[in-house]
Amino acid sequence: MAEGDRMHALVRRLYPLCRSITGDGLRETLAVVGEHLDLTVHEVPTGTQVLDWTVPQEWNIRDAHISRDGRRIVDFQALSLHVVGYSVPVDRTMPLSELRSHLHTLPEQPWLVPYRTSYYAPTWGFCLAQSTLDAMPDGDYEVVIDSTLEDGSLTYAEHVVPGQVEDEVIVSCHVCHPSLANDNLAGVAVAVELAKSLRNPYHTYRFIFAPGTIGAITWLARNDADKVKHGIVLACAGDRGSLTYKQSRRGDAEIDRVLAHVLRDRPHEIREFSPYGYDERQYCSPGYNLGVGSLTRTPYAGYPEYHTSGDNPDFVTPESMVDTLTVCREAVDVLDRNRRYVNLSPYGEPQLGKRGLYESLGGRSDAKDAQLAMLWVLNLSDGDHDLLAIADRARLPFPSVAAAADALHAAGLLKEA
Amino acid sequence: MAEGDRMHALVRRLYPLCRSITGDGLRETLAVVGEHLDLTVHEVPTGTQVLDWTVPQEWNIRDAHISRDGRRIVDFQALSLHVVGYSVPVDRTMPLSELRSHLHTLPEQPWLVPYRTSYYAPTWGFCLAQSTLDAMPDGDYEVVIDSTLEDGSLTYAEHVVPGQVEDEVIVSCHVCHPSLANDNLAGVAVAVELAKSLRNPYHTYRFIFAPGTIGAITWLARNDADKVKHGIVLACAGDRGSLTYKQSRRGDAEIDRVLAHVLRDRPHEIREFSPYGYDERQYCSPGYNLGVGSLTRTPYAGYPEYHTSGDNPDFVTPESMVDTLTVCREAVDVLDRNRRYVNLSPYGEPQLGKRGLYESLGGRSDAKDAQLAMLWVLNLSDGDHDLLAIADRARLPFPSVAAAADALHAAGLLKEA
Amino acid sequence: MAEGDRMHALVRRLYPLCRSITGDGLRETLAVVGEHLDLTVHEVPTGTQVLDWTVPQEWNIRDAHISRDGRRIVDFQALSLHVVGYSVPVDRTMPLSELRSHLHTLPEQPWLVPYRTSYYAPTWGFCLAQSTLDAMPDGDYEVVIDSTLEDGSLTYAEHVVPGQVEDEVIVSCHVCHPSLANDNLAGVAVAVELAKSLRNPYHTYRFIFAPGTIGAITWLARNDADKVKHGIVLACAGDRGSLTYKQSRRGDAEIDRVLAHVLRDRPHEIREFSPYGYDERQYCSPGYNLGVGSLTRTPYAGYPEYHTSGDNPDFVTPESMVDTLTVCREAVDVLDRNRRYVNLSPYGEPQLGKRGLYESLGGRSDAKDAQLAMLWVLNLSDGDHDLLAIADRARLPFPSVAAAADALHAAGLLKEA
Repeated sequence: MAEGDRMHALVRRLYPLCRSITGDGLRETLAVVGEHLDLTVHEVPTGTQVLDWTVPQEWNIRDAHISRDGRRIVDFQALSLHVVGYSVPVDRTMPLSELRSHLHTLPEQPWLVPYRTSYYAPTWGFCLAQSTLDAMPDGDYEVVIDSTLEDGSLTYAEHVVPGQVEDEVIVSCHVCHPSLANDNLAGVAVAVELAKSLRNPYHTYRFIFAPGTIGAITWLARNDADKVKHGIVLACAGDRGSLTYKQSRRGDAEIDRVLAHVLRDRPHEIREFSPYGYDERQYCSPGYNLGVGSLTRTPYAGYPEYHTSGDNPDFVTPESMVDTLTVCREAVDVLDRNRRYVNLSPYGEPQLGKRGLYESLGGRSDAKDAQLAMLWVLNLSDGDHDLLAIADRARLPFPSVAAAADALHAAGLLKEA
Repeated sequence: MAEGDRMHALVRRLYPLCRSITGDGLRETLAVVGEHLDLTVHEVPTGTQVLDWTVPQEWNIRDAHISRDGRRIVDFQALSLHVVGYSVPVDRTMPLSELRSHLHTLPEQPWLVPYRTSYYAPTWGFCLAQSTLDAMPDGDYEVVIDSTLEDGSLTYAEHVVPGQVEDEVIVSCHVCHPSLANDNLAGVAVAVELAKSLRNPYHTYRFIFAPGTIGAITWLARNDADKVKHGIVLACAGDRGSLTYKQSRRGDAEIDRVLAHVLRDRPHEIREFSPYGYDERQYCSPGYNLGVGSLTRTPYAGYPEYHTSGDNPDFVTPESMVDTLTVCREAVDVLDRNRRYVNLSPYGEPQLGKRGLYESLGGRSDAKDAQLAMLWVLNLSDGDHDLLAIADRARLPFPSVAAAADALHAAGLLKEA
Repeated sequence: MAEGDRMHALVRRLYPLCRSITGDGLRETLAVVGEHLDLTVHEVPTGTQVLDWTVPQEWNIRDAHISRDGRRIVDFQALSLHVVGYSVPVDRTMPLSELRSHLHTLPEQPWLVPYRTSYYAPTWGFCLAQSTLDAMPDGDYEVVIDSTLEDGSLTYAEHVVPGQVEDEVIVSCHVCHPSLANDNLAGVAVAVELAKSLRNPYHTYRFIFAPGTIGAITWLARNDADKVKHGIVLACAGDRGSLTYKQSRRGDAEIDRVLAHVLRDRPHEIREFSPYGYDERQYCSPGYNLGVGSLTRTPYAGYPEYHTSGDNPDFVTPESMVDTLTVCREAVDVLDRNRRYVNLSPYGEPQLGKRGLYESLGGRSDAKDAQLAMLWVLNLSDGDHDLLAIADRARLPFPSVAAAADALHAAGLLKEA
């Protein structure tokens, strides 16, 4: 099966599971990912202090519905979005007039079911289409949420691809959203394929699958962030829109330059950092200020289907996920091959011809990329410019510049800075 | 009476007075301003050395006219612009052919009377409409300027609103122009209303009403400019054009950032500093280089009525002066509330929910300004960014950001840097 | 004869000579230039190590042709481009099928003869129009290149105009191209006229006429580059296009600012440095990193006639060369008069009127350039801004600003920083 189809199949398989920031839906999700990658799964007990936060109680849900005359009108078994995340148990009959304050709809998108949670304030609720609500007559309804909210643990997982150096690149995906395909099963699927394809990379690559916010905070509380040199938060990786890269808080971190380069000749948008969105919020909090950006297609809250039942597996495409994956791989290539050199023959140009590096016939005006790349590398290898800066300045593809540097290095004309 | 009407009434009342850089017209003007504000009036004797300049002789004028057959053809009593400022006395009969070299008109605006002065070279002259001149037959005219140019003093005034700190913000208006409404009676009127409305400000606000150039130079010669932290030169504050802010010489002074922020969502123009215009020329001379910009509506020499009889009370409107005043007040608010904080919980986001600062229902995509403002303040309060920088970066209104900072500070999450 | 005609006559006179990077064609060219300027001619023996390079053998050519039945079909005597530069001798009869691999044409420009060289790889070849080749029937051809490639020397020349200081400005022209008018006889002609017109300049001006690449490298190897403060590589100085300035590698060198200023109000293009083009490649190699830019009209490889027989004396015009020369002269004027001053009366404006530097009649809105220039010079003469920076900031012509500085200096208001 081709990559795109494999990723889409994974999205479809994970879609029905009821994920949240804790609980068995999250564990099952990580178990499925674990069929593809060696995962280290962590369980962090309820009550553990993590930075400014406390790991909450674990939430599990078995069933939920709103019924009338024994017929399920809103049914958690059909769509996990129907229950407000972290709803406390309920089992009552009540009139619609009382039930209403627990119902969430999208009046402007009457056919879609919204996604809502209440992690830190105990309550319960249902999400349903406005059209469903409109069709519900007054009268009594049976309201059941068969959930538990008890001490337990928060679950997250890591997959590490050891590199030639211990400096790490993290790829972080939130895995806490229930039946939402683009947000973030597509991100998970792209991360899985990316991880599978890494072979003896230069950096050590760490893939983090954790619930949003509290998961990233837990990871940061339990790890040494200093080893994280670069990172990408992957989300909304499969919709039909073009790619958007949101810069790290630094704005000029190497990962920011890498993604700008890789996206340069594609339709794309670069956004400045903002402290809203996904877990870049945590990685880029001012105490850490890591070089971690966020790669999405259409970004956070940028499409009408966002956080609704419209974000289903049909909303994401194999082609889009392959495109996101390709960009991730090109970024990895740049990150892993980017170096800073010093020209050892900096006075005038060295004579490339006598080293077999330059075409002998002069006068032609169509200098080749390979020759231009060598001249650029020689001219800018002053210890200040890395190869990426040279590729940007020369408007040449990074691989051409890296190949030129390799050839010049082999010829003894460069040394690493 | 509403503010706009009060300001327009003040413009009309001051309009007929014949102001100059010295003399009784200037004193009467300050006396009228003194009916609204507690003023300290300074008299600086002729001959006093002020920086590179010397306080000139005092000029006073009682009457002036060009008459023929006993009929006043050009009459100072009707319009103070008719006499060239600082004209020496004359009382002669002379033919038009001789008189002509003393007459100033605007051939391209034949119905308007120009404004001219000759402070530092003794001469006399009249300003009149070209149409008036065209109607003057050859022959003899009686020419009278009943003026005196004698040792006396230069007059300027200050109004101080004490603040919580001694650091000063100056608001400076030139008061030397005779019957010109926008330039600068509107500026005076806006300054008066602004001064009246300040209540226990953070900075100390000093309003300076002084003749242009020599007055500002005199003020600088007699005061410690080091206490001036910010300032605005107010002029042309009442015409129907949109606002223009001319930056201080520094270009990145806090006042420059404040005005850019306050004007951001209004029609406006920002101009770089130039050493021409009003008294920002003196405050921004390189030895002082103060953070003083200039706020006008249509700027210096930017409208056809500039320095002509067309700049009369009908040329300025209550609405425009209210708009200028509003911007001044917003600028004062930013200047007085702008602070630099340090996030005391900089590793990850602090949990705002447990402190009652964050909405409990998750999943909605319409995060409120107040919550965004808190996230921005936390993320950028690293000691480098002040609240104004955060408001600019977040594209949020300053008051939202300042309110968020107050809430976070009250919750113990911030300290002042 | 006017300048433009003189320059065009020089181009026409030099055009037929067969220049290369060594040899008698180059020497004859320098001899002609020497009729206009005092030249110091240098001969550097074959085998001399110059930086990373070695001076090659000297190439001389007396005759070359491809003939059939005694008739010259391709004739070096008619056009020096017909022989690949540095062709080794040949004297054979061979079938067209064998000859073909030695023939260079431009299939897309079938009427033009290309320019080709092979300095460092021994071979031989002919350049001809595709239309000529198309008309050559199969069969045997007599192929003659009467050349020698032997130990000798590389020739270059210098003309120095001593200045008031030893700091040097170099003007460098490549003189190695055979019959190509714009590239670079027009550059040589402009340099000659520029050199002739310099009178007691502030800087010392050094004109370098040397073969491309190896000539510049040889010059750099034999001279102290530290004395070179500014420089221009002149090429393509005569075509009908507008001017292009390519910045030095530094990008913010004084020469870059000078050319940007001089070109500001002309049609022009500014390009960032790239390590391809003319001898700025050598002067701007990272070890030297000199403040040397490149002035051309249509730049390197930017016109269809580039490096073809289409680049003949009709391709360049007297008017274009005069325009290039004018810009060079204005650049020299700025370079030589640019200074940094300190305002000695920096607190407030000094009173210019009492020094006779300011118009006495006030109120007019059409301040004159001369007065504005004085205000700008006073305001920005803080030791940081040079006159050029002031002219740029004020958007005034450099000569106005320099004249204002002279007047203020004479009045004792400025001192040199």
